[in-house]
Amino acid sequence: MGKSRDIGNIEIPQVAGNGLLDRRALLTSGAVFAGTAAAASIGGIATAAAEPLANDPWSTTIGAPIPPYSNPSKFEAKVAHLIAPNNGIGTGQARTPHHLLDGIITPNGVHFVVARAGAPDIDPDKHRLLIHGMVKQPLIFSLNDLMRYPMESHIRFVECGGNSAGMWSKEPIQANVQALHGLLSCSEWTGIRVSTLLAEAGVDPKATWAIAEGADGVTMQRSIPTAKLMDDAMIVFYQNGERIMPWNGYPIRLMVPGYEGNMNVKWLRRLKLTDEPAMAINESRQYTLLLESGKAWRFYYPMEVKSFITRPSPTMQMPAPGYYEISGLAWSAHGRIDKVEVSADGGKSWALAALQAPVLPKALTRFRMPWNWSGAPAVVMSRATDEGGNVQPTRQKLYAERGEPRNTPNVNAFPMNHVNSISSWGIAANGAVTHVYV
Amino acid sequence: MGKSRDIGNIEIPQVAGNGLLDRRALLTSGAVFAGTAAAASIGGIATAAAEPLANDPWSTTIGAPIPPYSNPSKFEAKVAHLIAPNNGIGTGQARTPHHLLDGIITPNGVHFVVARAGAPDIDPDKHRLLIHGMVKQPLIFSLNDLMRYPMESHIRFVECGGNSAGMWSKEPIQANVQALHGLLSCSEWTGIRVSTLLAEAGVDPKATWAIAEGADGVTMQRSIPTAKLMDDAMIVFYQNGERIMPWNGYPIRLMVPGYEGNMNVKWLRRLKLTDEPAMAINESRQYTLLLESGKAWRFYYPMEVKSFITRPSPTMQMPAPGYYEISGLAWSAHGRIDKVEVSADGGKSWALAALQAPVLPKALTRFRMPWNWSGAPAVVMSRATDEGGNVQPTRQKLYAERGEPRNTPNVNAFPMNHVNSISSWGIAANGAVTHVYV
Repeated sequence: MGKSRDIGNIEIPQVAGNGLLDRRALLTSGAVFAGTAAAASIGGIATAAAEPLANDPWSTTIGAPIPPYSNPSKFEAKVAHLIAPNNGIGTGQARTPHHLLDGIITPNGVHFVVARAGAPDIDPDKHRLLIHGMVKQPLIFSLNDLMRYPMESHIRFVECGGNSAGMWSKEPIQANVQALHGLLSCSEWTGIRVSTLLAEAGVDPKATWAIAEGADGVTMQRSIPTAKLMDDAMIVFYQNGERIMPWNGYPIRLMVPGYEGNMNVKWLRRLKLTDEPAMAINESRQYTLLLESGKAWRFYYPMEVKSFITRPSPTMQMPAPGYYEISGLAWSAHGRIDKVEVSADGGKSWALAALQAPVLPKALTRFRMPWNWSGAPAVVMSRATDEGGNVQPTRQKLYAERGEPRNTPNVNAFPMNHVNSISSWGIAANGAVTHVYV
Repeated sequence: MGKSRDIGNIEIPQVAGNGLLDRRALLTSGAVFAGTAAAASIGGIATAAAEPLANDPWSTTIGAPIPPYSNPSKFEAKVAHLIAPNNGIGTGQARTPHHLLDGIITPNGVHFVVARAGAPDIDPDKHRLLIHGMVKQPLIFSLNDLMRYPMESHIRFVECGGNSAGMWSKEPIQANVQALHGLLSCSEWTGIRVSTLLAEAGVDPKATWAIAEGADGVTMQRSIPTAKLMDDAMIVFYQNGERIMPWNGYPIRLMVPGYEGNMNVKWLRRLKLTDEPAMAINESRQYTLLLESGKAWRFYYPMEVKSFITRPSPTMQMPAPGYYEISGLAWSAHGRIDKVEVSADGGKSWALAALQAPVLPKALTRFRMPWNWSGAPAVVMSRATDEGGNVQPTRQKLYAERGEPRNTPNVNAFPMNHVNSISSWGIAANGAVTHVYV
């Protein structure tokens, strides 16, 4: 690229086409913005103060007393789940509003939910977990029993196998990132290792599978490889410090880090060790996909490396040319994010984004890229690479592997699972941001 | 110590008096609990399963639909702020229920609050931040202006200067850790660096102070050293992903990492650069402490290294002798926690606790220690050391430095600020846990 842009007395190297600036500009603690002239030259963010501050009405009265449990300001009512039709019955879903959030933690109020029979109202004192099947000694645990085992805390993402399915549509669906990618969240989960309980029950070496069952109205079942349970699976009690929300599995949930969301069985009541999978509806039909080639995707668990830009993103409006931060999320079932590249010219040139530390395995990673938008039309994209060397594919590459995309009426249709292709957001000269295919 | 305890076929070394076990036992993925006989020998946690699971009523009906914003189960109603008298007027406070939480993140619903005039109901579109005083160019910012600067996210604790003041009472106050230590929370905060804005305004080198002012009904003021603002101070918009709760400063709050909570001015509307402190009530009276010696603690900001055990802790009841995990929190304004030592014999012997990774600077750190409680009376304590080599002091050491403790009617009295001495929890033979002085 080589070109640079003179901003005040500081030169910030342009590192890729259409105004992407060196990510090290983010680390200079304001030097690149020093002096109002400089600020004006990158978009006039600050305004010279002319008059004293008004005493707004809220500064001259006693405010609201503290409630037993806080909820957001009424001015943040838009920070809410996007809830699909038939909420609670059959296909109840709620999506996380990533376009309105920042950082990597998803607040518990808006963690995504897929619940085929709503949230059971479980009395934790009466709930039990049974471990049985091909074990030396079947065991049953109360919550108090389980919570005496050694605990661990890990920040982990959970993503529905059907997240981003709307990206499989032949034409780009015009919706925000909550609708397009919102079946994805990240929390600090605290609980115990499944391996501890399995060691105590004594697993038959021939028991290569375990059927995990929930206590909800459909007694949701998934078959989990015993090897995964012995590796890093947990039974979790706490989500960002407090006990899990009812819609996320209260009082206990199975956590199989990096695997499709549905396998992280909520309201867990049973692990049955077996030597074959259950072929439950959620693995024989819902999360198996018959391709046009006649082959099927089945028992494919890890959520592969992926990223998307949260700001700017579709349905937003850029107020004026000038300085912006491109911000987004990246993650992979295969460990840490190694790098995220960003393009502002529709993929012609790419530059490295800054990754917010700490970069944690199997957790969301926040990336940021400084950008000087000239006001001309642009297409912004992000491409993540994980520490296993897996690179987020283009749409074209995914189509070549899995068959042609289908006409998709809206984001609630699931024509394909495990869609992890690159997302492209178009910015028009008037600042409108839309979903585009390049 | 040398002695060890045979558990099944595995020997877990006892590493300190009264049953503290080697922390590496936590990392063995269940080996130490392998076999029901072994489990029984450390307390009989698991129960052999005799009968099939009952189909509880919640497993045979459709559950609750997903709400726009989730709140905890009705069975978790005890996870709530502990609210002080006169909530909202004068001394409104709410404390975080650390005895009911785990991990390091405090959920936004129960982040602690001190608010002298309740929470103002601020319209973010009308809120402004003014930077003026000894600057080249006074500047005024709307929220949309501020949010265009480069953002950062950091997991940081905030602790009230008056937290743990109840530990200064002559006799140990019988209350839970929410009451004793609950003016402390930890969140992922996202925002921009203050230094960026100050560089743009152009600070006069003689302006060694800035007066930070909130938009609440008392227009709360604190004087902040300019050096701290230029170092790592932030203006934050997001708390654990979503916009800050109204009681924690919505729409913007100053964050001065590690400094007493009150300096992290909420509802921030003004930074006035000056060459002397304002001597506002919150620094001349509330957070200054006249000692019996005639000397005073004033302008002392960092919250020094501290820890306490959350489980077991006062008002809890141990059900029976056997295996438990001692779990707690440690933190310091001076960076990362280097180590936490735990004692189960009232301080006669100590052993290293396991620290949950990642251990982050100026953030809560969760520690865990495996313990085999014999059923005899015990006193459990924790002692934290930070990476600066600062060691959490005994009560006696603090008294020697600051004068004798005072009669304190309850935890809402503040006879001393910045109390960071070691907490001791007594466990009686009947399992009752109380607050004791050793």
